[in-house]
Amino acid sequence: MPILVMKFGGTSVATPDRIRRAAKRVGREVANGYDVIVIVSAMAGETNKMVGLVDEISPFYDAREYDAVVSSGENVTAGLMALTLQEMDIPARSWQGWQVPLKTTSAHGAARIEEIPTDNINAKFAEGMQVAVVAGFQGISPEGRITTLGRGGSDTTAVAFAAAFGAERCDIYTDVDGVYTTDPRISAKARKLDRIAFEEMLELASLGAKVLQTRSVELAMRYNVRLRVLSSFEDNNETAGTLVCAEEDIVESNVVSGVAYSRDEAKMTLISVADRPGIAAAIFGPLAEAGVNVDMIVQNISDDGRTDMTFSCPVDQVKRAEKAMLGAKEKGDINFHELVADTDVCKVSVVGIGMRSHAGVASKMFDSLAAEGINIKVITTSEIKISVLIDRKYLELAVQALHDAFELEKAA
Amino acid sequence: MPILVMKFGGTSVATPDRIRRAAKRVGREVANGYDVIVIVSAMAGETNKMVGLVDEISPFYDAREYDAVVSSGENVTAGLMALTLQEMDIPARSWQGWQVPLKTTSAHGAARIEEIPTDNINAKFAEGMQVAVVAGFQGISPEGRITTLGRGGSDTTAVAFAAAFGAERCDIYTDVDGVYTTDPRISAKARKLDRIAFEEMLELASLGAKVLQTRSVELAMRYNVRLRVLSSFEDNNETAGTLVCAEEDIVESNVVSGVAYSRDEAKMTLISVADRPGIAAAIFGPLAEAGVNVDMIVQNISDDGRTDMTFSCPVDQVKRAEKAMLGAKEKGDINFHELVADTDVCKVSVVGIGMRSHAGVASKMFDSLAAEGINIKVITTSEIKISVLIDRKYLELAVQALHDAFELEKAA
Repeated sequence: MPILVMKFGGTSVATPDRIRRAAKRVGREVANGYDVIVIVSAMAGETNKMVGLVDEISPFYDAREYDAVVSSGENVTAGLMALTLQEMDIPARSWQGWQVPLKTTSAHGAARIEEIPTDNINAKFAEGMQVAVVAGFQGISPEGRITTLGRGGSDTTAVAFAAAFGAERCDIYTDVDGVYTTDPRISAKARKLDRIAFEEMLELASLGAKVLQTRSVELAMRYNVRLRVLSSFEDNNETAGTLVCAEEDIVESNVVSGVAYSRDEAKMTLISVADRPGIAAAIFGPLAEAGVNVDMIVQNISDDGRTDMTFSCPVDQVKRAEKAMLGAKEKGDINFHELVADTDVCKVSVVGIGMRSHAGVASKMFDSLAAEGINIKVITTSEIKISVLIDRKYLELAVQALHDAFELEKAA
Repeated sequence: MPILVMKFGGTSVATPDRIRRAAKRVGREVANGYDVIVIVSAMAGETNKMVGLVDEISPFYDAREYDAVVSSGENVTAGLMALTLQEMDIPARSWQGWQVPLKTTSAHGAARIEEIPTDNINAKFAEGMQVAVVAGFQGISPEGRITTLGRGGSDTTAVAFAAAFGAERCDIYTDVDGVYTTDPRISAKARKLDRIAFEEMLELASLGAKVLQTRSVELAMRYNVRLRVLSSFEDNNETAGTLVCAEEDIVESNVVSGVAYSRDEAKMTLISVADRPGIAAAIFGPLAEAGVNVDMIVQNISDDGRTDMTFSCPVDQVKRAEKAMLGAKEKGDINFHELVADTDVCKVSVVGIGMRSHAGVASKMFDSLAAEGINIKVITTSEIKISVLIDRKYLELAVQALHDAFELEKAA
């Protein structure tokens, strides 16, 4: 029988009633002729409660014990979901990560999946079981300890199971009904996309759209898993939600698919850095070691052997970045006159695979921002996205202007 | 290094603060030179919460899924306890049942321990780990599913670890400071016992004293594990709590050690049963099948080929017992005139290994009840206990009278 993976997030399994609702969706797919693998998150709030307990006990915790504690919520939901399905006369059982076993690296708190053996679950499907309920977010290390995949890791669990079992599709049930052209809270004209390419979704996820964990999209792209995002709280027909799929499965698309933003960015500039080969490494090495997530980087044209180096990072990492830079200066590894931090900026990006074949996207973007009197501070581009750093106060204005300029309210 | 097992119940680990308090006790034993195995229950209320969720979803649940859900609370506490110990610079790690692995039968919800391999934990002790924190109450079946040992099962986990590792002692930390001659809420003269014999403790546990799970005492007796019950909420010295130990370790003891009671009993009488060989089996077979826990049994002297058969059971099983008896009558397996249920009775017992060598305990018991005008309805005896069924309204009076008669307020 064809296999379908269905993943339910924390709000979709927050109460026994909601678990029942999710189980009914599973029941419909079983009736449609699928063997179903259900991946569940912890009931909403449970994982945060566990994290809170760990924080209360130990600010510098052993990540192995942290994982053992915070993975418990998924075990509860998996058992409850299996019971609910059985109550509906659907043969089901639960699996915890170690029972599959979902094998991961030993990087506790952010482990990567290494292998998902399918024999165990497939044997049960062969015996007549129709639903395997698997606790998301967790796995087992080579040392036999429980690992977790990082926040939002259940998305990744779901995609990895879909890849391992050759599932026809991986449906991610969540509290929004799909991927939008931009955040509907910012632009009333935001439109739900029926389809989006993996590459676009990956850019959107990295650029701040919270609907899917970035790694789950990477994995889906790598194994060509058809990924659908849809709502737990609405009736869904065949074309509900957004299908994240390979480019060739998208017949028509706009040049730009979406506008993403990241609100709390900071721009830091090292003024008058002594320019020499290896200077970039001397700057960004210490930043990486200090755990600063450097995003955009711009180096001004150098004259007289000195240069200005600008980079952006999340605003809450500015203190750490300053400490790292001043430390490197003190040690003599780098030399600069001044370090200037602008903590009132944000990043706005347009994303679309159509950019590859259409010229003029950048100039249209810059024109429409200029028309609103918005000054661009830093620009970076990739093949399918253009990002700009602007003053934070212009965020909403910029998103709306770009959504209008590229006519995203209209389907292709 | 000598090994000590310390078990902390739900109220002793109900909050991070209480876990810290428990961890300090563990730290003191580490300082005393022990390698410690800590067995933890779920934080107070957590297991009941899980049971509530299961009940809400599925009244006739799959016990395997039930076990997977309700065992989660112990995993959380085990991780938190390990983190707390690490925070105090004590090398510790947690084990879940399947990691040990604590092997049990497949009797989900009431599994029996079959084996506890010691190599895994002993190897860590050899590497310098000083505390192994183990999630109580849970194990793994031959099929690789999670099992639980029944309510109060963490006591049994603790004793089984003490037996497997040859621990010097097994300390059970709870919310009372030891075993009393009777319930202090009923008799203000109740006295804490410094020592009690396994056999006595076993009788007291089966007769309603809630301080230890009956199976944990059986196991301690079988493997001669020195078991100490003491309070989490008081400072304890060397002689704190009550030591449950072999008879030969008790130098002096009263003839009677304690008075136990069980409040909600029922007495059922089958009147005028046709007496024939095999009649007892024909009555008690169906009762066992119906899940009725028959306790005391009395058969009146038979004349004219008919007899009255009386038995007691918990009051909430009366309906089930009636259904089983009427069913057996209908099928023609037994024949009786009438079934009379008295649901207003209770059981009061005196227990003591001293009875073996002292005559007159029974008559003293009956005399003192008679002196209070209390009528005895059923009597059963064993080598070290005498139990009577009386009207429930006399429970407190009977307990107090017997406590006085045997002078239990005085140490031997």
